[in-house]
Amino acid sequence: MDAELDAMLVSDLINVRYLSGFTGSNAALLVLAEHETPVLATDGRYRTQAAHQAPDAEVVIERACNPHLVGRAAAMGVRRLGFESHVVTVDAFATFTREAGERCELIRAAGTVEGLREVKDSGELALLRLACESADAALTDLVQKGGLRPGRSEKEIRNDLEALMLVHGADGASFETIVAAGANSAVPHHRPTDSVLAAGDFVKIDFGALVAGYHSDMTRTFVLSPIADWQRDIYELVATAQRAGRDALAPGVVLKDVDAASRQVIADAGYAENFGHGLGHGVGLQIHEAPGINGAAAGTLLAGSAVTVEPGVYLPDRGGVRIEDTLAVTGDSPELLTRFSKDLVVL
Amino acid sequence: MDAELDAMLVSDLINVRYLSGFTGSNAALLVLAEHETPVLATDGRYRTQAAHQAPDAEVVIERACNPHLVGRAAAMGVRRLGFESHVVTVDAFATFTREAGERCELIRAAGTVEGLREVKDSGELALLRLACESADAALTDLVQKGGLRPGRSEKEIRNDLEALMLVHGADGASFETIVAAGANSAVPHHRPTDSVLAAGDFVKIDFGALVAGYHSDMTRTFVLSPIADWQRDIYELVATAQRAGRDALAPGVVLKDVDAASRQVIADAGYAENFGHGLGHGVGLQIHEAPGINGAAAGTLLAGSAVTVEPGVYLPDRGGVRIEDTLAVTGDSPELLTRFSKDLVVL
Repeated sequence: MDAELDAMLVSDLINVRYLSGFTGSNAALLVLAEHETPVLATDGRYRTQAAHQAPDAEVVIERACNPHLVGRAAAMGVRRLGFESHVVTVDAFATFTREAGERCELIRAAGTVEGLREVKDSGELALLRLACESADAALTDLVQKGGLRPGRSEKEIRNDLEALMLVHGADGASFETIVAAGANSAVPHHRPTDSVLAAGDFVKIDFGALVAGYHSDMTRTFVLSPIADWQRDIYELVATAQRAGRDALAPGVVLKDVDAASRQVIADAGYAENFGHGLGHGVGLQIHEAPGINGAAAGTLLAGSAVTVEPGVYLPDRGGVRIEDTLAVTGDSPELLTRFSKDLVVL
Repeated sequence: MDAELDAMLVSDLINVRYLSGFTGSNAALLVLAEHETPVLATDGRYRTQAAHQAPDAEVVIERACNPHLVGRAAAMGVRRLGFESHVVTVDAFATFTREAGERCELIRAAGTVEGLREVKDSGELALLRLACESADAALTDLVQKGGLRPGRSEKEIRNDLEALMLVHGADGASFETIVAAGANSAVPHHRPTDSVLAAGDFVKIDFGALVAGYHSDMTRTFVLSPIADWQRDIYELVATAQRAGRDALAPGVVLKDVDAASRQVIADAGYAENFGHGLGHGVGLQIHEAPGINGAAAGTLLAGSAVTVEPGVYLPDRGGVRIEDTLAVTGDSPELLTRFSKDLVVL
């Protein structure tokens, strides 16, 4: 905790979970500089669960968790109380100022816990590996069982994949599965529809598994035979760009440079305009977390972070390719967590 | 829009979706009192999708959607700009004040769009019906196929149910499915584990389907034979309380009175301490939305709202029962959307 703070109020539920282990949907945590025991506030639905998941915290049952803990901090004599200004709303802050009273100052402390979360410990990396393995196994099963073939709908494929991830140990999908066939593959974040796969389609699948709160993220793009030359060209281009991005990952590397390493490959081929999103993002307890890897990113890659590398080229009304892995930035060469092959597959 | 505002900035993504149709994960919407065409800001990933989903809006591509639209409003001469103070964070508000400059005043306008969302139109009710039907059909299949029997794990049942909802037209689960067997059923929001069902267990299942953005919510509690007298007693008690709650639903009724109508039944039986959560909540584009139905709720039920009624009795370390429906408040008697039987089922 910042040495200038007497206490820190944690309002973001993911941050509460990270620090306390508690996973309920209404909670806040008060961490005190001079007490080992933090105070976890939640409501009556979670009385049993909070005692079980957060045995190291003092649990208080109170529906208005955040204002209650501000008032409690003030009553305990806290003079400088940090709060998550990137999470707390303007309206909530108004209640905080009332509860804090005259003598407790509210200090912006945005991103403190997110900074801790950026570096994963071995237990977290183990859960990320499990999440990635579940997704790998599900996609392997789907392809081996002939799940990707003309006549099947995007939604059917999504259904199969999500069911297979559960079979392979996931608690659920880590975000809304994208299955995008044919011209739909040109939409980076397409939602599955009833439209059916046809010969000659790109089939772009972006999905992930959730295991014990940790998210995997992977995109693969297949082609249904027959493949056209333009499809082979952009597939190989994106694969080359993706490799360049992965090769750029190392502790201490400037985040913008990772983005540029991959983006330059696509720009050199004349497709800069067809790659309209960042190269990647951190993954962990959230599907998108620090660090962002894009042209506007500040800072460098940290050892122990887990990130995606996911360039794409999208040709409106024709089709698009994205190839994405989740990797752990450990040592000089990153650990590939999503291991499904990235070779061009024509089905 | 509030007559005192020249424009309203909509930052909440669900509200953006409700007003514009756009479903991307980064967006904001500027609604102008004197222009029919709102301005939708989103980033490059969503260029194609935004044009498709929000044909009535002017789309601008800009990653920092909210500050951009504040600056744009100020440049257009907006003097009084409403913003969602219950959504906008303290840090975001600091960027708004910079962008707004001297002449554009930022006015708190919390809950304006949520107020509109509370009353569902016929199209929304149709989607809620579909979501509830998917959940009904999935649970029916699960039970008919013998999915609830000793030896099966909570996770296996969750997997089956989520897969069956997809088969029956859902886009996914509307929240994390709860399957809680035996003593776990005493935890109101238990997460499925590998623990297996045993003879004599309560099996409490709280789940829902998502269809085109609309959420269903239903809880049923089964008993695996043999049933004990205490199980029969609390099941019948909760069923009676749930009926009382449903019977209290009508346009104009005070929300607190709905909660009390059901809660009193449980209190009269001596179990007030074992029902530690509110009676229900609105459902729609979010799984929890206005109105809340609990002892602290202000206001009355609106015609056209859709709500849950979900009393429970939880006996720590023994087991618990919750029975929950989703209903539409239309006319004098509500429309039951979740139709799976609530009769006591001993399997």
